[in-house]
Amino acid sequence: MITAGIDVGSVSTKVVFLQEDEIYYLVRPTGWSPREAGLNTYQELLQQTGIGDSEVAYRVGTGYGRISLGFIDKAVTEIHCHARGANYLVSGGGLVIDIGGQDSKAILMNDQGKVLDFAMNDKCAAGTGRFLQVMAAALGVDVSQLAELAKDRQPLEINSMCTVFAESEVISLLAKGADKQDIIAGIHRSVARRVWGMASRFGPAKQILFTGGVAKNQDVRNRLAIEAGAPVVAPELGQLAGALGAALHARDVAKKDFV
Amino acid sequence: MITAGIDVGSVSTKVVFLQEDEIYYLVRPTGWSPREAGLNTYQELLQQTGIGDSEVAYRVGTGYGRISLGFIDKAVTEIHCHARGANYLVSGGGLVIDIGGQDSKAILMNDQGKVLDFAMNDKCAAGTGRFLQVMAAALGVDVSQLAELAKDRQPLEINSMCTVFAESEVISLLAKGADKQDIIAGIHRSVARRVWGMASRFGPAKQILFTGGVAKNQDVRNRLAIEAGAPVVAPELGQLAGALGAALHARDVAKKDFV
Ligand code: SF4
Repeated sequence: MITAGIDVGSVSTKVVFLQEDEIYYLVRPTGWSPREAGLNTYQELLQQTGIGDSEVAYRVGTGYGRISLGFIDKAVTEIHCHARGANYLVSGGGLVIDIGGQDSKAILMNDQGKVLDFAMNDKCAAGTGRFLQVMAAALGVDVSQLAELAKDRQPLEINSMCTVFAESEVISLLAKGADKQDIIAGIHRSVARRVWGMASRFGPAKQILFTGGVAKNQDVRNRLAIEAGAPVVAPELGQLAGALGAALHARDVAKKDFV
Repeated sequence: MITAGIDVGSVSTKVVFLQEDEIYYLVRPTGWSPREAGLNTYQELLQQTGIGDSEVAYRVGTGYGRISLGFIDKAVTEIHCHARGANYLVSGGGLVIDIGGQDSKAILMNDQGKVLDFAMNDKCAAGTGRFLQVMAAALGVDVSQLAELAKDRQPLEINSMCTVFAESEVISLLAKGADKQDIIAGIHRSVARRVWGMASRFGPAKQILFTGGVAKNQDVRNRLAIEAGAPVVAPELGQLAGALGAALHARDVAKKDFV
């Protein structure tokens, strides 16, 4: 049986096809239209895999753009899908910290991966991928270079949590001749502090899983571990957690229907 | 007797000399060094007025840069100075709403102008002059043009409170061909909403005084009155409220010393 999970985030759209333990996936920028991004990414993955739409037993949408998707069978909240997907990637429950392009969340699960509590920030750019984007632009580097540049550097103090005020601080540090790579380390620490400030009330947890686009940044991961005072595991396919959880949910529903 | 008030704000430095009912003043950008800005502006006003430093009986510093001033006799918190100055400009107490370059505050006074309670935001750029600056840059206009451009326009909806996310909304509205002037009206309403969200718990007040650099923007003033559902008075010298209050405080101290 094949099921689909479509996670339309503010920045990127993730589609997962699940067939037994086989995961097919595709990530594309969301762009201006969540509706089109969801549909196009879904269709592109059908083409890439050679799977026909009629072979997909059930489609679950999630993420902020889920409501605008016309072709799905059901929409499920991202917190639920996210926990489900993360617990599939690394079983045993614990705390999921997700930093996406424009939001961040912390989800506490029991040992079976059931959601016990959560906190979310989608109102303030600080502590999200957007913060990193603004800072990278101010420093004239690409977001993808940040982790490498900050590696083993001494983080400089950035006092403002606010993206706008922190950007001014960064520009002022540069003007004073501060080392760019130490500034980036400071930026990473700022993100880690902000997000851990939201997540810490759920700690100490059995294990900490780090997902979302920003989890690919190894230096943010290290800074988060320092803030948390505990190891942080970033599963390989962590960016897919939401879409994967949606596909798992879709499988549950489809199986019930087939009984 | 002549006394001086020096208000070193994050964006502009205001110095007031008070001689009986006569007010001499000077406003200069704070720039990188609050210490220098305070001293230089003070000395420039001495020169302009022909007053000698030894003729100044007492000097009170206020604003975020007050701690770095070496030449003052005393530092007083901006909330205290602000209320004092606002109540001197428009007597009778009430609620002072101040929007400065990088912060905003709401101060509730009794009928004699004594501070009863206050709220302050200096952590988030939204609802401060900085928000307007970022938006003006995104729109390619000068902050000083905003009020005129927004006059009598229909505010467009801006959903995000966050400066960073609102900036993206503004750029997206422009790309969709929305009217620039209606966008600016929407930006002004956003500032008014954010600040009234902080101040509303002190209302309804006997009167609402609007001070700080942003109070010079007539359209923000109108939008604030709409949000508050009450008239908003912006005294002519409202930007000087803090420095004026500091000079009044200095006069009290100096008079005591001379008894
Ligand atoms: S603190 Fe800064 S980044 Fe956060 S909401 Fe305010 S303006 Fe946006």
